[in-house]
Amino acid sequence: LSSMQSSGSKSCRCPSFKLREVASMYFTMIAVFLVILVVALQGSAPHGSDFPYKVPLDPQGLLELSWNVSYPEQDVHFQLLIRDLQFGLLFGMSDRGEFENADLAVLWSDGHNSYFGDAWSDAKGQLHMDSQQDYQLLGARRAPEGLYLLFRRAFSTCDPKDYLIEDGTVHLIYGILEKPVHSLQAINISAIHRGLQRVQLLKPNITIPNLPRDMKTMEITAPDIVIPSQETTYWCYMAELPDNFPKHHIIMYEPVITAGNEALVHHMEVFQCAAEFDSFPHYNGPCDSKMKPDRLNYCRHVLAAWAMGAQAFYYPEEAGLAFGGPGSSRYLRLEIHYHNPLVFEGRRDSSGIRLYYTATLRQYDAGIMELGLVYTPVMAIPPGEDAFILTGYCTDKCTQLALPAAGIHIFASQLHTHLAGRKVVTVLSRDGREQQVVNADGHYSPHFQEIRMLKEVVAVFPGDELITTCTYNTEDRSRATVGGFGILEEMCVNYVHYYPQTQLELCKSAVDPGYLHRYFNLVNRFNDEEVCMCPQVSVSQQFFSVPWNTFNRDVLKSLYSFAPISVHCNKSSAVRFP
Amino acid sequence: LSSMQSSGSKSCRCPSFKLREVASMYFTMIAVFLVILVVALQGSAPHGSDFPYKVPLDPQGLLELSWNVSYPEQDVHFQLLIRDLQFGLLFGMSDRGEFENADLAVLWSDGHNSYFGDAWSDAKGQLHMDSQQDYQLLGARRAPEGLYLLFRRAFSTCDPKDYLIEDGTVHLIYGILEKPVHSLQAINISAIHRGLQRVQLLKPNITIPNLPRDMKTMEITAPDIVIPSQETTYWCYMAELPDNFPKHHIIMYEPVITAGNEALVHHMEVFQCAAEFDSFPHYNGPCDSKMKPDRLNYCRHVLAAWAMGAQAFYYPEEAGLAFGGPGSSRYLRLEIHYHNPLVFEGRRDSSGIRLYYTATLRQYDAGIMELGLVYTPVMAIPPGEDAFILTGYCTDKCTQLALPAAGIHIFASQLHTHLAGRKVVTVLSRDGREQQVVNADGHYSPHFQEIRMLKEVVAVFPGDELITTCTYNTEDRSRATVGGFGILEEMCVNYVHYYPQTQLELCKSAVDPGYLHRYFNLVNRFNDEEVCMCPQVSVSQQFFSVPWNTFNRDVLKSLYSFAPISVHCNKSSAVRFP
Repeated sequence: LSSMQSSGSKSCRCPSFKLREVASMYFTMIAVFLVILVVALQGSAPHGSDFPYKVPLDPQGLLELSWNVSYPEQDVHFQLLIRDLQFGLLFGMSDRGEFENADLAVLWSDGHNSYFGDAWSDAKGQLHMDSQQDYQLLGARRAPEGLYLLFRRAFSTCDPKDYLIEDGTVHLIYGILEKPVHSLQAINISAIHRGLQRVQLLKPNITIPNLPRDMKTMEITAPDIVIPSQETTYWCYMAELPDNFPKHHIIMYEPVITAGNEALVHHMEVFQCAAEFDSFPHYNGPCDSKMKPDRLNYCRHVLAAWAMGAQAFYYPEEAGLAFGGPGSSRYLRLEIHYHNPLVFEGRRDSSGIRLYYTATLRQYDAGIMELGLVYTPVMAIPPGEDAFILTGYCTDKCTQLALPAAGIHIFASQLHTHLAGRKVVTVLSRDGREQQVVNADGHYSPHFQEIRMLKEVVAVFPGDELITTCTYNTEDRSRATVGGFGILEEMCVNYVHYYPQTQLELCKSAVDPGYLHRYFNLVNRFNDEEVCMCPQVSVSQQFFSVPWNTFNRDVLKSLYSFAPISVHCNKSSAVRFP
Repeated sequence: LSSMQSSGSKSCRCPSFKLREVASMYFTMIAVFLVILVVALQGSAPHGSDFPYKVPLDPQGLLELSWNVSYPEQDVHFQLLIRDLQFGLLFGMSDRGEFENADLAVLWSDGHNSYFGDAWSDAKGQLHMDSQQDYQLLGARRAPEGLYLLFRRAFSTCDPKDYLIEDGTVHLIYGILEKPVHSLQAINISAIHRGLQRVQLLKPNITIPNLPRDMKTMEITAPDIVIPSQETTYWCYMAELPDNFPKHHIIMYEPVITAGNEALVHHMEVFQCAAEFDSFPHYNGPCDSKMKPDRLNYCRHVLAAWAMGAQAFYYPEEAGLAFGGPGSSRYLRLEIHYHNPLVFEGRRDSSGIRLYYTATLRQYDAGIMELGLVYTPVMAIPPGEDAFILTGYCTDKCTQLALPAAGIHIFASQLHTHLAGRKVVTVLSRDGREQQVVNADGHYSPHFQEIRMLKEVVAVFPGDELITTCTYNTEDRSRATVGGFGILEEMCVNYVHYYPQTQLELCKSAVDPGYLHRYFNLVNRFNDEEVCMCPQVSVSQQFFSVPWNTFNRDVLKSLYSFAPISVHCNKSSAVRFP
């Protein structure tokens, strides 16, 4: 052994240094922060264009968050505007917006000095300073409108106390300190003014397509209405395309929000009505009003959808969404969800959506396809489940029949469940192997359903499978939740936006009803229970009478993963492929 | 906001520094290593007492590993003696001794220079330098007997490529480089001389009790036999206590290994025979010989057990294991497992176990209790499972009936399964909540069954529950593996050593046979299969005829976790508590 050297690679994601080294580096970091702070306090303002995304955090708009995302650096830079700073604030992230087990950046003042730190809250909501400081303060600046705080956070840290920033919904939480506090631990998180805001933090990094010269705009907006003084309102307003409006392509749309109402307009959708009716009433009022004409229920074809925090939506350069022309209704329905928890009175609003469209049709019509589960009670979730999984299949046989040989390109996706939905994911599978995630939201909320551009366009070919999995929480329910259209029934849907348009509108599945019948039989015999299986009793009724012990729950899961499925591979919502 | 400071705790388990900082620290580490190496090469030899544990790695004894464990530092220091160094060696750890997905320290030479590094092998066995160097070289020293390498490793690193050193069995692997290699990546791991050795790396840190002055020793050793020239031999030798040998307490025992045979003697046990027979034949030969008298099967009460790498076994100061006296057989059976893969011929051996005993009886007799599953075919594992779990319960009702109010103290444990066993764990549960792990082995091997001292004595009170869970792998089997005594049947047992001795010898469970009958019925009806359930067909036969689809597998798991259990709470192997 003539000489010895130690050898290794230079990349290192998570080194385990000794405590002493860490402590000294930590104090260096503090020193660096202080230097940066001084620079920032004297330096120039951050540019608005540095932070392309913006959302108000609270209903009054006292806190306004702007941010940008760097995929090469795998981090997010936040700029938080605090309009009326008192004794500090909490900002952070948690699984579903709760203040327990949350990952928080805290700015607090004891009346003399102010402090900033990365903290976490335990299962009881008690705050603790984090052993690893991952919210890195980069600067602070006083301006006429308030205090700007600038800080960064890596998507993923090596700290088990930290939130992992992923694609999909992120539940941001905030709290306002209205009294001085002498330490982080002294903050009583349950006694402060606080709230939550859902955003898609990791926006896709998309190049904006070239827009044609002949592009026109059309605003579908509420006609200066008064926002009702109640927490939740769904407002319906009927608009109409001009007579003999020929076929156009929508190539982009963006929100139009009345100034001052940014924190109240939660989400908006423009639907096209069914072509089978010649006319629709000109309604303008709450969607749940007794006065709302029934016929408005036939306006369900989504043309545009926007939710808080979302930006303009661009179609890919090759495609546009057709509207106008023969076989297409002239009637549009605008639906606005106003979220008014502070019950402001007399606020007037003319928000809506601005459509950008062109008469120079693009190469392809865009289409929307529905993936997931058929709306049927045979797919059910037992009560008291914290994470029950149901899966819907768009099978290889269906894509073989219905897709063109050159395939289709999915460029956007809107996930949809009812109130028990907690996660939704669609994966593309080829030859039985998972190839790619089409869209995933591990913190999905039924209250935040955006159409999201995909980071990458997904090509789907004949023979591919699209598997959509939904996770539900029914801990607050006492009886089974069956599939269906009702708000207390469930859905598992991914509306994928793709081109070129095909005849395939719906590619979904459900368990074979014969096997479900065997399940009810088994429950009956195994548990010595009387579950009525007379033909006149509905599947829902049978589910409601199952005694939900662990065995019956487990066997239902096993059934769903084992039993054959019945596939709906439909040209329209009625006509099936042969 | 008068001034700002950054605040945080000083403890930091796993910081995420920027690449630049890491790289510079890494090169510092190399420099430190080189300095240490020079010091070590010139300095004094490590003391043998610094490394209390020692095991040969290979059957020839060319590699000898010594180590110590520091619980305050949470690390292990290794001293590896390489008697005949050629061009380097690999040493490391993996889940079950495989060379794929292994964590390795590699010393290699290109003929001119030698290198040391922390590496890992991927699923194909290809070596890669680890991005984080966690095997830290502390020194190297040439001595007449060979080269000593000294290095340390933390139990847990922050590197997902690293093996986590836990309690229980660790599969050590080694490989010898017989040719120069030009890089780590060039090592073809499948072409080198290599092997595995199982050890309990994290020995408990036990204070040795005071030993009495009147302590005597007795050696139960093989009578200078010739080790058979075959890979595996279980040797049986009958020994006898003196006539009228009164009751004594065994308070300690240790191995006696014939010099030169350290790598061949794999494990040894001393059993006491059943008192119901007045005499036993004086057999001395292989345990599987046709000549072995049947009566030796009645010698099954364990007095002492040792396996490679284990040290002396000490009873706690309050207790000793009774032997001798009325009601106790004079006959002992020594069983030695010789592992002779290189098929050495003519090796003579007189290894065995030295018992240390005293006539001054200690306060308590020690007892052995059997926890886990009853030996019955109703507990079965489907074929083709990679990790199937079976659980046996020593219930609150049984401990309530059988244990003294002051409780018992478990101080040692021997885990036992047959060939499909992969993990075994026993936990203590009180009022339905897990209190404490009694003994756990996440890398359990049926080929390495030691009696292990517990790190902490576990107190068990009336009303406590002891839950033993075994994990099995049946990927190489084509039919169900049922519970039973046969080598291809399975067991799930934890022999716990405790004091004071009680009448409770066995506290185990199995699924209620009536529910298993319902399971066979269900399989029959659900799958339209004909599984014969005639009374004359055994449970094993019924298991063998189950079609093992995912549904039948899942439902069997659900059954085992849901169905009522039948509990055996026995005074001896036959008499149940009322």
